[in-house]
Amino acid sequence: MSKGVLMVVSGPSGAGKGTVVRQLVARSDKIFLSVSATTRTPRPSEIHGNHYFFVSKDNFEEMIKKDELLEYAEYAGNYYGTPSAAVDKMLEDGKDVILEIEMQGGLQVRKKRPDAVLVFLIPPSMEELEYRLRSRGTESEQSIRERLAIAEKEYRNAHQYDYLVVNDTVDNAVKTLQAILTAERCSLKRLSLDDMRYIRTAP
Amino acid sequence: MSKGVLMVVSGPSGAGKGTVVRQLVARSDKIFLSVSATTRTPRPSEIHGNHYFFVSKDNFEEMIKKDELLEYAEYAGNYYGTPSAAVDKMLEDGKDVILEIEMQGGLQVRKKRPDAVLVFLIPPSMEELEYRLRSRGTESEQSIRERLAIAEKEYRNAHQYDYLVVNDTVDNAVKTLQAILTAERCSLKRLSLDDMRYIRTAP
Repeated sequence: MSKGVLMVVSGPSGAGKGTVVRQLVARSDKIFLSVSATTRTPRPSEIHGNHYFFVSKDNFEEMIKKDELLEYAEYAGNYYGTPSAAVDKMLEDGKDVILEIEMQGGLQVRKKRPDAVLVFLIPPSMEELEYRLRSRGTESEQSIRERLAIAEKEYRNAHQYDYLVVNDTVDNAVKTLQAILTAERCSLKRLSLDDMRYIRTAP
Repeated sequence: MSKGVLMVVSGPSGAGKGTVVRQLVARSDKIFLSVSATTRTPRPSEIHGNHYFFVSKDNFEEMIKKDELLEYAEYAGNYYGTPSAAVDKMLEDGKDVILEIEMQGGLQVRKKRPDAVLVFLIPPSMEELEYRLRSRGTESEQSIRERLAIAEKEYRNAHQYDYLVVNDTVDNAVKTLQAILTAERCSLKRLSLDDMRYIRTAP
């Protein structure tokens, strides 16, 4: 059996990553979302092992030291990262694994797993992004300005990714991600000689 | 508007290329099959400009000299080839173009158009391929042996292609080709800076 595909989905805040990725996973029993580890305090609604693995700072730094993370970053004094072991187990089982992480993390994953597929998800335009951020009604003017500036910077670095997907509607974006997974599964860069031999001699 | 995708579909005789490619084109109004030029005599049922462009040997050699072909080959004393102009016109119009040609021709196309997508279509197994060739009932034992030997050789060279698609059912194979076209359309290797600027500033 061939290995699953490791897919990173990044994109500016307001692009709709969360909704698209949850739909993608919900529509298939072979596509799974990776669960991140974090040192931040769980919110009341959050379940350990479902939303995050909540670990101590010592534990997290131990994982860094032992090279047990595919990527990690520090935000506002807390660590966030992707433990390798669970991801690798699912890939070995032939499951596709989705990481919803920042671009910086995505580029760390590429270094450790050169066969990872990096997707940059964007809203149809900057105007639409600003509109989406404003219509949340929860962000200050300064926070909106900051998010737009980060988005501009990410766009300039998007060429380091493999695919650019426009989230015009959730359904279109999900179908495009499904198509990318289908295509990548039969990419000859990814198929080993063993896979090909299997195809050649299968009854 | 972004350019269309140029896709080459090759595979052993008996893989079902013709059926799959015709279905792929029939299911979309943005995917077109390239028409080859040939110096062989038309069969009674064949229409000029539909099945082939039937040209004289002098005309064909003139096209070779003027570098007007994406690829060409000689079989049994006749030339077969793909005129560039019609293909490029469709790609510029944003249409995807399919070339159903031999692996040798596919590798010629790759040299002239590095952004071409090369797909190798195979039956589920060699046993299945032999079964399909035999059940035609029109091939001599020697011809079947020859076709299987050519198939073996093509499998060994398949790693030069981009994708390997198993034709287990026509519907699966067509859907996989559609997914590859969808994925390639948002590949960042293919998108120009202009396309990205368009996405960023579109209203």
